Amino acid sequence: MIAPAAALALAGAAPAIPAVPSVQRTWTMADILAVPEVKDVVLSADGRFAVYVLRTNNEAEDRPEFALHLLSIGDRTDRILATSPWIDRVRAIPGRSTWSALADFGRGVQLYEIGNDAAVTPVIVNEALALVGSADGAEYGFTETLPLRFGVISYDWSPDGRQLLYATLEAGGKLKPIHGEAVTRLSARLRRAPPSFMHYYVRNERGETSPVVMRPASDRVARFLGALPVWGKDYLDYGVQGDDKGIPSVHRYRWHFATRTTTTLPEDGSGIFWGRVTGPKGGELTVTGASAGRHLVERLPGSDGAVIDYGPTGVILSDPRSPGSWRAANGAFTIAAVRLAEEARYALLRIGRDGKTTLIGTDESLTHCTFRADALEGVCVHEGLARPPRLVRVEALSGRITTLATLSPRHDAITPLRVEKRQWTNRFGYKASGFIVYPREYHKGQRYPAIVVTHDSDADERFAAPDLQWNYPVQLFAERGYVVLLVNEPWGRQSPALEQAWRSLNDCDGRVSPAELQRLIWLNGAETIRSLVEDLARQGLIDRDRLGIAGYSAGSQLVNVTVTQTSLFRAASSGDGAFLEPAAHRYNRCGYRAIYGGPPGDPVAFEQYRALAPSYRAARSSAAMLQQLAEPRAGAIDFHQALEAAHIPAELTLYPGETAASDETHIFHIPSNRRAAMEENLAWFDFWLLDRAREGSPALRERIERWQLMKARWQRQP
Amino acid sequence: MIAPAAALALAGAAPAIPAVPSVQRTWTMADILAVPEVKDVVLSADGRFAVYVLRTNNEAEDRPEFALHLLSIGDRTDRILATSPWIDRVRAIPGRSTWSALADFGRGVQLYEIGNDAAVTPVIVNEALALVGSADGAEYGFTETLPLRFGVISYDWSPDGRQLLYATLEAGGKLKPIHGEAVTRLSARLRRAPPSFMHYYVRNERGETSPVVMRPASDRVARFLGALPVWGKDYLDYGVQGDDKGIPSVHRYRWHFATRTTTTLPEDGSGIFWGRVTGPKGGELTVTGASAGRHLVERLPGSDGAVIDYGPTGVILSDPRSPGSWRAANGAFTIAAVRLAEEARYALLRIGRDGKTTLIGTDESLTHCTFRADALEGVCVHEGLARPPRLVRVEALSGRITTLATLSPRHDAITPLRVEKRQWTNRFGYKASGFIVYPREYHKGQRYPAIVVTHDSDADERFAAPDLQWNYPVQLFAERGYVVLLVNEPWGRQSPALEQAWRSLNDCDGRVSPAELQRLIWLNGAETIRSLVEDLARQGLIDRDRLGIAGYSAGSQLVNVTVTQTSLFRAASSGDGAFLEPAAHRYNRCGYRAIYGGPPGDPVAFEQYRALAPSYRAARSSAAMLQQLAEPRAGAIDFHQALEAAHIPAELTLYPGETAASDETHIFHIPSNRRAAMEENLAWFDFWLLDRAREGSPALRERIERWQLMKARWQRQP
Repeated sequence: MIAPAAALALAGAAPAIPAVPSVQRTWTMADILAVPEVKDVVLSADGRFAVYVLRTNNEAEDRPEFALHLLSIGDRTDRILATSPWIDRVRAIPGRSTWSALADFGRGVQLYEIGNDAAVTPVIVNEALALVGSADGAEYGFTETLPLRFGVISYDWSPDGRQLLYATLEAGGKLKPIHGEAVTRLSARLRRAPPSFMHYYVRNERGETSPVVMRPASDRVARFLGALPVWGKDYLDYGVQGDDKGIPSVHRYRWHFATRTTTTLPEDGSGIFWGRVTGPKGGELTVTGASAGRHLVERLPGSDGAVIDYGPTGVILSDPRSPGSWRAANGAFTIAAVRLAEEARYALLRIGRDGKTTLIGTDESLTHCTFRADALEGVCVHEGLARPPRLVRVEALSGRITTLATLSPRHDAITPLRVEKRQWTNRFGYKASGFIVYPREYHKGQRYPAIVVTHDSDADERFAAPDLQWNYPVQLFAERGYVVLLVNEPWGRQSPALEQAWRSLNDCDGRVSPAELQRLIWLNGAETIRSLVEDLARQGLIDRDRLGIAGYSAGSQLVNVTVTQTSLFRAASSGDGAFLEPAAHRYNRCGYRAIYGGPPGDPVAFEQYRALAPSYRAARSSAAMLQQLAEPRAGAIDFHQALEAAHIPAELTLYPGETAASDETHIFHIPSNRRAAMEENLAWFDFWLLDRAREGSPALRERIERWQLMKARWQRQP
Repeated sequence: MIAPAAALALAGAAPAIPAVPSVQRTWTMADILAVPEVKDVVLSADGRFAVYVLRTNNEAEDRPEFALHLLSIGDRTDRILATSPWIDRVRAIPGRSTWSALADFGRGVQLYEIGNDAAVTPVIVNEALALVGSADGAEYGFTETLPLRFGVISYDWSPDGRQLLYATLEAGGKLKPIHGEAVTRLSARLRRAPPSFMHYYVRNERGETSPVVMRPASDRVARFLGALPVWGKDYLDYGVQGDDKGIPSVHRYRWHFATRTTTTLPEDGSGIFWGRVTGPKGGELTVTGASAGRHLVERLPGSDGAVIDYGPTGVILSDPRSPGSWRAANGAFTIAAVRLAEEARYALLRIGRDGKTTLIGTDESLTHCTFRADALEGVCVHEGLARPPRLVRVEALSGRITTLATLSPRHDAITPLRVEKRQWTNRFGYKASGFIVYPREYHKGQRYPAIVVTHDSDADERFAAPDLQWNYPVQLFAERGYVVLLVNEPWGRQSPALEQAWRSLNDCDGRVSPAELQRLIWLNGAETIRSLVEDLARQGLIDRDRLGIAGYSAGSQLVNVTVTQTSLFRAASSGDGAFLEPAAHRYNRCGYRAIYGGPPGDPVAFEQYRALAPSYRAARSSAAMLQQLAEPRAGAIDFHQALEAAHIPAELTLYPGETAASDETHIFHIPSNRRAAMEENLAWFDFWLLDRAREGSPALRERIERWQLMKARWQRQP
């Protein structure tokens, strides 16, 4: 047994759960940077202990830090068992009272056993490390963290704990010329990966290790879903992805413990099992039907196609932002994590064998849930837009929810901002949901400058969710006197026409014309924003002349479209997006055929590009545009240049990776970049909406001087 | 003194110059790969020794190899003093009978002294190495070789040998966010460089080292021109580039040996001194006047503007492909390396104080010339398209040329191919030059398949010049029965209209309309090819139905334009080019304004793109198109995809770098890539022009199977 220095030095009792401090305070930049992200939450088999992983920042090393916490359910004490630049796949080891996890304690990411006494024992250490991340020569395995070296990339225990399945990653080998589509795929990524292969092994209780299968890293089932293991008594069934075209056709095999050989399993068309929700009767639970007619149904096992209908529902089962489902051993009920799309929050749904369904939750969200094997009792995170996360115990039958531990005393000490939930219908007749965050010092009757923050469906009851607010410091905007509007796009399942538009975008089946598809998706999104903004202006809450808009990724598309289709906004911030730009055609030929009807050089398609592509419409923008990038995306540069050519204020900032050979990730992982990008956004909106030159670093002051020149030039325009 | 193992192990007597072998033979692939490239040629002060650097391939390590040869002029013995992955800037050390050079003997590139006995002594070793080349985290310093680590990047001796100027490169430091134009510049390069700075030092005869100046690596004068040192008795004058906008405005400074301080020199508007040719009277020699009225003149020093006219001339002075000029100590004459543009060859021009000019040369070329300090006697390389290189002695007064040493006995053993020089005038009235390489077994009256190889002005009398023939195995094409046509574009200086078109392209001054500029440059080039091909078809030499075209870089533009504007060719190979494509607009806004009138989204410019941009005209191509790339250039991919969409046979091959973190260079440097790319070209033209499926590696056979599918689909087209 070893106890790595890093783990030992940092392990120890965490502060006891404090009472809510009496001195309440307002948000600071440091508070936003300190918001913890909850990762794995795991219960011990007996339900006496929970472990959970919190991701925070290591400011000294300017990188993410993962801490594995142990919570004793009985006495509510919380201690840190280990810290590492990365911890993942925490499991309770079957048959033992210890935990296993992938973590980096200085020897690359390996598989460790961790006891409740913080003792750390290596289980599998593979010295042949492979670099993974957004870096050159790295396998492009996952994002949103720094490049890491991996010895072990995946593992799973058999339910009896006697067999261990694990995988290593082998990177390298002589590079060969590549052709055609492979060149296009390569060119879509800034960073190049060496040829990489995964090796799966099984180690049995006698310590004997056998190779099971080798797969290229392009096999996404083997790479990201752990090869979908299903354990039998004498065998392991596993799945791999059979083709490299991105079609998730899964082939399944059986590996026999005794003979150490593999046999092929029949194709049952069942595809990927990951995320499947099993109903109380053992069938698959799904939501079927269109729009208002959606029902929760269970398709019973067997081939007679029998279905149980649990009635109308508005839930999405096991959304990736809060996944999971647990079936009572006696089949009395299934409890499933659900998203309530119209309410923009997460809860649990108990589906009884008797056909009754019961929603379990709070006014805000239950996320990161996990239940005991008997499904009677579980642990979730209770959080909301204005509610810092805390661990709660959930009783499946009574639905009773009790607090176990707060996860961030620091944020409990902040007086919550006033947040109001909204639903509205836009001029096209589509419904959307969102939130109004009020300025800290709100006085009814006064008009406030406002900033819209948009990112498809991520505006929901989660605490400072990084996938919504990115580098937009929502809380500081509100502290500084802005109204902040968190806006979701119209949800897709509300109308067959909208559902078909999304399908046509994905499948480019040509069933929706480019003009109609543009209208239903992007112009619809812009109309949603326009409707809310005009409502609130009419109500006297916001000031029409001081409106800004921000969004990253899908949100950046909406920002770029909105400012080139409306004249609502005076300033905008568009984050790390370049989709819709002609420059991205080569990587999105199918989707662009749906949106535009063909490549930008086609004279008929050209008119469709002119109708929507932001860089082709830059001269119509009325907003000063800041673009913040994690990579120098060609289409983003084109939009920037087109704005400049039209003499519209435009700033383009690329945030660096750790070295010249790595990149910042789409959701920034480098704390100093996050801070600088948030500062830049604050300064940008203050400058254009409030006419205020914000104090800041010398670098920021230099920027502001540049903006002053832009503003002077803009104001001289005829 | 050290004698590095690498140098010692490989030093030794080179084979004595053999008599031409009696058994003559034909070209092989190995012969092309073994063609030596001559780099530096240097004479000792007393003229008794010459050293020269030959670049060949190290097949075992699959990389370039540089060998420093010593030739004793008296007895004509030749020996190798040292080998290294890179040798550059060879100089005779003033006041000593030894040589200095930058070379990598296992400690990175450092400055060494090398004796005629092959003893190697380090002069400057800087252990802080910086990576340079086409690799991630490398300064993008020079191309066409593998990434190398540099301790010393530049040096120069004072004429008395007492002072040594040298420079180091410092790479690294914390990356900062970058903005606007800097993001665009970064995005134009696949590989990222860390912030890099050069430090220049002077070391005096007492061994004292003083820092002189620090410059960012973006200062191209400091980076590539050694800071333009001009040595005085007590001082060193040097130049740096003052701005980062690519404008070569040079600021000059004086560094004083005694005080070790710097003073500013007055701006004299003289700009860069590099490549300046000094006439017999000490003035600057230039060629002035337009087209046929060009004269060689010397502007006398002083401010009265007096000029001596040496009369009409057709030469280009000190062309970068064969640079240099030497002035006799007594001012009796200057001898200058010249290019004869219309004859597509290189020679020497003696310009006498008496006003007489005399051309010195052979029917082929004199290149890589160097002369003694008195300019009376020099050494050149004598080479031609069908003439393997040899070192010759040139006497300046008599013009006598005598052979000193053959540089490649291997190629002397090959029976030369028949090469014929041509000049012709195209339908637009523009003249061009080129060469016809006849098939080995040529029978008059028979028609041959033909391949045009085009690359602006590089078709000239040099032996298998890699900047012309790239990965197109010209000699093997001829051995296999093709006529090969090496074609230059119309030379720019033949008409004021053409000169103005090139100026407008560079300055985008709008003086030539996009349509006229397209016509004068690219359509003019295509017409040049058409004229030659039609002439030769009329003469019965070539078969109209079996024509191919190949070219890389500028040549790839001409290939892509020619196949989308004419229907002459059935197959084409386009090398590592993407200029003219809409995708390159963002890096070439000035030039594209000249060519197209604006960005691709502009409705007026759109018509100009439709008139010329290859990917917008792909459906008009009649040629099966192979594109070979060193980097996955976006525009090249667009053209490939557009051809595919139009069901025209198209192959796109990317050749890899040494690792996933480095690239093949524009002119390939990895021998196995060069071999594979030449094999691919042979197979490609054989397949489409001769209907022959060439034997080859399993990888190549797999390619040919793909081409067979393309051919079948193409033939089924209506």
